[in-house]
Amino acid sequence: MAQNIYDQPDFFAGYGQLGRSVEGLDGAAEWPALRAMLPEVDGLRIVDLGCGFGWFCRWAHEHGARQILGLDLSEKMLDRARAAGPDTGITYARADLDELSLPPAGFDLAYSSLALHYVENIERLFGTVHQALVPGGRFVFSTEHPIYMAPTSPGWSIDGDGKKTWPVDRYLVEGPRQTDWLAKGVVKHHRTIGTTLNTLIRTGFTIGHVEEFRPTDAQIAASPDLAEELERPMFLLVSARR
Amino acid sequence: MAQNIYDQPDFFAGYGQLGRSVEGLDGAAEWPALRAMLPEVDGLRIVDLGCGFGWFCRWAHEHGARQILGLDLSEKMLDRARAAGPDTGITYARADLDELSLPPAGFDLAYSSLALHYVENIERLFGTVHQALVPGGRFVFSTEHPIYMAPTSPGWSIDGDGKKTWPVDRYLVEGPRQTDWLAKGVVKHHRTIGTTLNTLIRTGFTIGHVEEFRPTDAQIAASPDLAEELERPMFLLVSARR
Repeated sequence: MAQNIYDQPDFFAGYGQLGRSVEGLDGAAEWPALRAMLPEVDGLRIVDLGCGFGWFCRWAHEHGARQILGLDLSEKMLDRARAAGPDTGITYARADLDELSLPPAGFDLAYSSLALHYVENIERLFGTVHQALVPGGRFVFSTEHPIYMAPTSPGWSIDGDGKKTWPVDRYLVEGPRQTDWLAKGVVKHHRTIGTTLNTLIRTGFTIGHVEEFRPTDAQIAASPDLAEELERPMFLLVSARR
Repeated sequence: MAQNIYDQPDFFAGYGQLGRSVEGLDGAAEWPALRAMLPEVDGLRIVDLGCGFGWFCRWAHEHGARQILGLDLSEKMLDRARAAGPDTGITYARADLDELSLPPAGFDLAYSSLALHYVENIERLFGTVHQALVPGGRFVFSTEHPIYMAPTSPGWSIDGDGKKTWPVDRYLVEGPRQTDWLAKGVVKHHRTIGTTLNTLIRTGFTIGHVEEFRPTDAQIAASPDLAEELERPMFLLVSARR
């Protein structure tokens, strides 16, 4: 069972103030890259694993998706997603991705944004998603990059000249990582890129695209703070096909 | 054109003293993992891209490969490979992997150990390898891991408590890296895992397995120095299928 950190008051309050919570998809630097990996959603049946406030579900609805199921563990996020509407076309439901069941071949696209690093048993989930997709269906997701997640003490190291590096250790020691991000004791599950991809392949997926997100030059020009993202990747984006 | 560093006397002398040069495949910690990704070589036609002293070519010959072409840029390494025999079954030839041509559908397996990070134009090479394989043919290779290669100053950082980390910077800045390993000014070409895999996919390959090499517990017990390899990956191993 996954930790329900998003429903803790301090975490929920902090998370609600992030750019991606306030501005939605446009507040997420990696969204254009992730969007480019999606098929046309017009007419598709979509499941969103870890839908949060429902920004992607609403985007898919506006772009003609036929049927959208948004799943999240957080009651508070689901409440806010439901309140944002629309009244038809999107169904929100509470689900623990570590214990998820989905009907067979009920979806054309499975999507997940920054939720899979909270999942302990990724093989079980990938198997569930595989059987829930129609043949040829797509699975497109982002997750925290293992370089970002691996270290005992994740963070920048700055030397006397102001040069930033990201010290990595325990990269090849997979398993839980506990950090204090927005709240104390947030538990994530560190996996190498190899493990994520091999688990997809083993559960029957074909790898389509693997992107270690890099902000574009235009994004950096508009938001110079993003330049530090060139030093180490924060997000891993993957598309796979059943 | 790739740099021919291996034929520089100081590099060649230093390289010849490494465990993997003296002991061959058994001196390379990643060989058991790479071997496990290979098909049975009995009866196969094989090209080895960057064959060095010919250890893999001889192993494949001993395991029944039908025809083996060992390619390398270093005359000195090819001379030593030829001198080691056998007289038939293996052909050694000089080739720059950045300018390689191979006959169409002439091979069942392309293999490469720790050579691709010297190649500047990986897309050209992957395209060459793809058309050189029969449908269903395999491409199995190791290369330096981008975490190992990315930093401006690759190396361990050790804090006051003796804790080792591997500071990463410029991970998302792809391109040449110059290091002093065995000789001054060795040029390698840094690419993300995403770029390597997407280039394979774009040239027509299907990704079969991606391994960020981790020594086994048994290897660490036998050689405790290997424990530090858990902190950051040194090698990336990939298998793909035409």
